[in-house]
Amino acid sequence: MVEPSSSRDPEGDEAPTPLGLGILGLGTVGSALVRMLNENGDYIARRTGLQLTPRIAAVRDPQKVRDNPHTHTVDDVMAVVESPETQVIVELMGGIEPAHQAIIRALELGKPVITANKQLIAAHGPELAQLAEQHHVDLLYEAAVGGGIPLVRSLRVSLGGEPLSRAAGILNGTTNYILTRMSEEGLAYEDVLRVAQELGYAEADPTADVEGDDAAAKASIIAAVAFGARVDESQLYQQGIQGVTAVDIAEAKRLGYVFKPLVVIERLANGAKQPDKKRRISVGVHPTLVPKDHPLASVRLANNALFLDGDAAGEIMLYGPGAGGNPTASAVLGDVIEAAHNVLLGAPERMPNVGEAAVCPIGEHASAFCLTLDVRDQPGVLAEVATVFAKQNVSIRAMEQISSEVGARLVLITHRARYADVQDVTVQLQRLGAVAKIGTVWHVLEDDE
Amino acid sequence: MVEPSSSRDPEGDEAPTPLGLGILGLGTVGSALVRMLNENGDYIARRTGLQLTPRIAAVRDPQKVRDNPHTHTVDDVMAVVESPETQVIVELMGGIEPAHQAIIRALELGKPVITANKQLIAAHGPELAQLAEQHHVDLLYEAAVGGGIPLVRSLRVSLGGEPLSRAAGILNGTTNYILTRMSEEGLAYEDVLRVAQELGYAEADPTADVEGDDAAAKASIIAAVAFGARVDESQLYQQGIQGVTAVDIAEAKRLGYVFKPLVVIERLANGAKQPDKKRRISVGVHPTLVPKDHPLASVRLANNALFLDGDAAGEIMLYGPGAGGNPTASAVLGDVIEAAHNVLLGAPERMPNVGEAAVCPIGEHASAFCLTLDVRDQPGVLAEVATVFAKQNVSIRAMEQISSEVGARLVLITHRARYADVQDVTVQLQRLGAVAKIGTVWHVLEDDE
Repeated sequence: MVEPSSSRDPEGDEAPTPLGLGILGLGTVGSALVRMLNENGDYIARRTGLQLTPRIAAVRDPQKVRDNPHTHTVDDVMAVVESPETQVIVELMGGIEPAHQAIIRALELGKPVITANKQLIAAHGPELAQLAEQHHVDLLYEAAVGGGIPLVRSLRVSLGGEPLSRAAGILNGTTNYILTRMSEEGLAYEDVLRVAQELGYAEADPTADVEGDDAAAKASIIAAVAFGARVDESQLYQQGIQGVTAVDIAEAKRLGYVFKPLVVIERLANGAKQPDKKRRISVGVHPTLVPKDHPLASVRLANNALFLDGDAAGEIMLYGPGAGGNPTASAVLGDVIEAAHNVLLGAPERMPNVGEAAVCPIGEHASAFCLTLDVRDQPGVLAEVATVFAKQNVSIRAMEQISSEVGARLVLITHRARYADVQDVTVQLQRLGAVAKIGTVWHVLEDDE
Repeated sequence: MVEPSSSRDPEGDEAPTPLGLGILGLGTVGSALVRMLNENGDYIARRTGLQLTPRIAAVRDPQKVRDNPHTHTVDDVMAVVESPETQVIVELMGGIEPAHQAIIRALELGKPVITANKQLIAAHGPELAQLAEQHHVDLLYEAAVGGGIPLVRSLRVSLGGEPLSRAAGILNGTTNYILTRMSEEGLAYEDVLRVAQELGYAEADPTADVEGDDAAAKASIIAAVAFGARVDESQLYQQGIQGVTAVDIAEAKRLGYVFKPLVVIERLANGAKQPDKKRRISVGVHPTLVPKDHPLASVRLANNALFLDGDAAGEIMLYGPGAGGNPTASAVLGDVIEAAHNVLLGAPERMPNVGEAAVCPIGEHASAFCLTLDVRDQPGVLAEVATVFAKQNVSIRAMEQISSEVGARLVLITHRARYADVQDVTVQLQRLGAVAKIGTVWHVLEDDE
């Protein structure tokens, strides 16, 4: 290990301190990181006093010719972790194993770990953070959420002292790309998906993106960092975007909304008032009707953004490209510099406690909702429908009736309501003879919750 | 001083470490900070392991009854700095003295300093940062720019490893408020200024805001943190918003632009290519024609935003309320928590070197520009005008001719050009008999520079 050095010379004349990086995985992000370190090494050295050198990388095929002349390649992940040449470990393999065991070993050896692995951090982040704390080293993962947008550090440090009432974000570029093109060009889901696959915005198997698994992993990370909550899969409301139709989008637009693939984490009102109770939050991943003048509505195509309501800071939005080799490598590099600096000082970053807030069951989610009902065009139908809503204490904020060939369609937007109550409404509506069909229930983002 | 403690218990059961704050100034921000510490003290303690208590505050009139029951008030600034009860000093007085001397004393005593004082940091930031480094303590000033938006930390750490090509921002809420209402309602400058003063968005003496002094101080801070440059007043292109008329705004709108009060810091192309030369940047504060679909165009009223072009991170925007007691106190609190944590670890933050980049003279600024000429409506005028531009190597990208009672008005937008060349163009144009009047030269923000 490197000895803690004295503060660097403010004139910048002192020789920079060399630190060796071990890199697990040399795919798009890993190659971009090595290129940045080679191209900007002197800039980083002058700015930070650190000479960062990618020493060894673990790759599947060490024989393959690569454009990284200064980096030795091996196929043994643990050899990189354990090498005396590596002082900081960067994990860019993805997946759970062997990344998980490699990170555990690195932390046990007292080497800080930087990772972009959202799946691993979502599943094992709290345990790994605890292990890092035991060994007085850093585990940093800015790149796991939102590419190069500085989300994790802002939540962890800048906003570390104030409770947030809500974090709502677009954290998956693929689904934002698909919904943006559907909205702006009136295209069908399948057609845009095909184009997105051709252009490389969606994978051949798009399941993890369109069904919301990717966003759910990021939601778990944000919930942990911003709210101190550990999210169990069963507590997370998850809805994919496959069900969003061109008709849904057109109807939303008529009412002044645009469909966006959101992660929404909210503090519930009751938790905060009782000092002996934990704060309670709800965590959801779902296509959402966003008011067209809300800042999130203008986040287009593959861009990401996180919109935060701080008790004191007010409404803050952090916006940028949420993926790609270079932006992700940029986030990794910021973490590497921080961790390397902390190695010299012998002082790791603090991470927020997980366990500060509890996650509520899905039924207790509160939101405005949008419901679409196909009804027979006969007198008294609206009264019947409205009575069902009233009985379940769900208040209707806006309604539009659209005539169709087979009858009428009602598009209803509720005031803020419990999800369980809205579910009860749909069950009751199904029993009405006048209601032919109930469409998908959508979340609606409200400005003043 | 507090002894470095071992890492806090991950279960959060360990008693939090108490730290006393000394607060210089209990105005809007100071009072908001004390309120946040009183209300959220337990939350902060659970999340960070720190029990932060505002012990003593320096105020003008200690006899005044205040709503801060736990904070002792005195009128002696140095007494707060030197008190053994204070381990972290928060400077919220504003102005140069006595804030400057108080901060020097605190740093010499090894106490970290948090300040929201943009004027002081713009003028003396580099020397104070050097002093802080000598004494191994923090000097943090997130709140000096952009209220609660996490700008400084994002630039310093998250994007610390990659050169930026441009930082363009709306960092003054008053002028953004004025230009937004002028643009959206077609009002005159004087009328909106009066309303802004009535609503508290502008001061009785609005000079510092409307002439750009406030934004210039913030530009100096961003230039230091993001580019490692020290800005001399003479190198900063500064233009107030008082000259923007309703006619200018209408003409810009016709060409697809909206006027925004920008800070623009750009890396010049030549510096980066010559390895032995310092990078060179230009620094400007000026009303700017922003393309109407650029993210900065949608930042309305008193909101602030910083739009960054990172070599790897891509285009990132950080957005939020740029002023106000609560947002500013939120930024101060994030810094206090970081500094307090570093006191426990005995390890201060690193600050980037200033001296990494040099600032170019105003004449070398490069931008697209907008010029307005009142010309006699006679054959051949446009040819004469175009010849002048061509001789100075300034290329015209767009032109619109508007007929008026006295002749014609030409609104011209150039391609990227050197400011000195555009000045030469205006000198040459004045000599043409056909040109009756040349309007103010405006900067135009381009997307693809």
